Amino acid sequence: MRIAVLGLGLIGGSLLRALTAAGHQVTGYDADPVTRQLAGAAGSVREAVRDTDVVFLAVPLPALPDLLPDLDGYRGLISDVTSVKGPVAALMAGRRFVGGHPMAGKEHSGFGSSDPLLFRDQPWVLCLDPETDLADWRTMVDLLGGLRARIIPATSAEHDAAVARISHVPHLVASAIAASAAEPGVLALAAGSFRDGTRVASTAPALVAAMCSGNAAAVRPVLDELIAALGAARAALDDRGGLIDWLGKGHEVRRRWPLRATPAGKIPTDREGLLELGRQGHSVT
Amino acid sequence: MRIAVLGLGLIGGSLLRALTAAGHQVTGYDADPVTRQLAGAAGSVREAVRDTDVVFLAVPLPALPDLLPDLDGYRGLISDVTSVKGPVAALMAGRRFVGGHPMAGKEHSGFGSSDPLLFRDQPWVLCLDPETDLADWRTMVDLLGGLRARIIPATSAEHDAAVARISHVPHLVASAIAASAAEPGVLALAAGSFRDGTRVASTAPALVAAMCSGNAAAVRPVLDELIAALGAARAALDDRGGLIDWLGKGHEVRRRWPLRATPAGKIPTDREGLLELGRQGHSVT
Repeated sequence: MRIAVLGLGLIGGSLLRALTAAGHQVTGYDADPVTRQLAGAAGSVREAVRDTDVVFLAVPLPALPDLLPDLDGYRGLISDVTSVKGPVAALMAGRRFVGGHPMAGKEHSGFGSSDPLLFRDQPWVLCLDPETDLADWRTMVDLLGGLRARIIPATSAEHDAAVARISHVPHLVASAIAASAAEPGVLALAAGSFRDGTRVASTAPALVAAMCSGNAAAVRPVLDELIAALGAARAALDDRGGLIDWLGKGHEVRRRWPLRATPAGKIPTDREGLLELGRQGHSVT
Repeated sequence: MRIAVLGLGLIGGSLLRALTAAGHQVTGYDADPVTRQLAGAAGSVREAVRDTDVVFLAVPLPALPDLLPDLDGYRGLISDVTSVKGPVAALMAGRRFVGGHPMAGKEHSGFGSSDPLLFRDQPWVLCLDPETDLADWRTMVDLLGGLRARIIPATSAEHDAAVARISHVPHLVASAIAASAAEPGVLALAAGSFRDGTRVASTAPALVAAMCSGNAAAVRPVLDELIAALGAARAALDDRGGLIDWLGKGHEVRRRWPLRATPAGKIPTDREGLLELGRQGHSVT
């Protein structure tokens, strides 16, 4: 296939390299001239997407709207790798679009950290919303399945609720716990549970704020649920048996993890069947 | 010195070995006959503590009260290594006692995992409460300083508030976050921030419940503070700048950590001066 990747940071750069290695004819573009030169990329968006079948938007969410005018009139299929799916789907209304989100990352960012094997065996959510064309969705499954990613069907809303639980709220909590240990006499005593529980508090606040604000509608109810759960733990503090019960659920879930998305047996052909498969933690590849 | 260590698990066993290596004459006792044999320990508490100057209680908090009758009439100095200090201080009222808590541990427990270097360069809180005898406290500083632990003065209440912040509440939060990701379609997407943020949810619920319930009076206000902080984050979700500010404090604290307890310059001789030094994150050795 002829494919363009717009935005050549860690994810876009890795995608460009993985698709090239898989035998596709891939062009790239990045706003940064040094990255363009490093990646052998095209000089403009219009030049990069000319005559391609698929374009991946791999820029951060705030940069997406500025890209869209250059895609007016584009006839191919558009996908993206943004970590919030509902707001992107709204931006893309009226275009031929399948939203996606590879659940892969690294400590370091930028094209220099890119890795053509970054997506192998990792989950990649492909959104199957009521307005998603099923044939286009299958095209993307074949394309990304060819990189050996584990494709997981979900609606945009399901995806956004899931990342609120597994990533956005944990980032907020890590920051709150770190903030509560500000006194030097407290911080000097901190050890393993503090180290791990607060690791992601070292992420740049602007990045965390962008992802949490961008997903506010999904983050809010998960925060409410967490606050209620902590209230229940508080109420059980004087009842050791009750507290053991309260702790049991999280303990059981954590021991089931890592739960790899496992390939489904028979792949259904209908939308609801595919979504149900994703809800069970299965991939379609 | 002649020293007894009662309870020869990871901490007690390491302490027995560290004190022996430091040239002290050390006897041990453990309720488990196999551990006694492994450690060359005495056959009873009374035999272990006979003619010793110091005894360390290194059994779990629930087992402490059963040990005490065998220490009736003991003339030496009693210390402990229990992770909650207020309740232990209450149990020890009327005895010659200096409470302590080495902030060191390992994934594995039991005498077989013990390590004579476990405490080296690690913080060891020694409680300086109004009822603590200052000469006894200094004896403990010299003894444990000889193991090259970093001795940090704190009141029992200060210690218990600090461990609520850096350990007990983080354990509760890890469990709540894990529990909120129970659905397979959610859990299959979880990656790094979930892995680290929930690691301690795999600790046995009975252990976590014992430490949180045992420190309920200190855990409760820290939970209240955390719930209020998460409510503030929720209110800032639609205000990216406000959320960046909210995230800034935890980010700054996390980047200061690990904050090693640093030796103080001039060691004060008075109680309040020593406590103030601990509050600044300094050690007295």
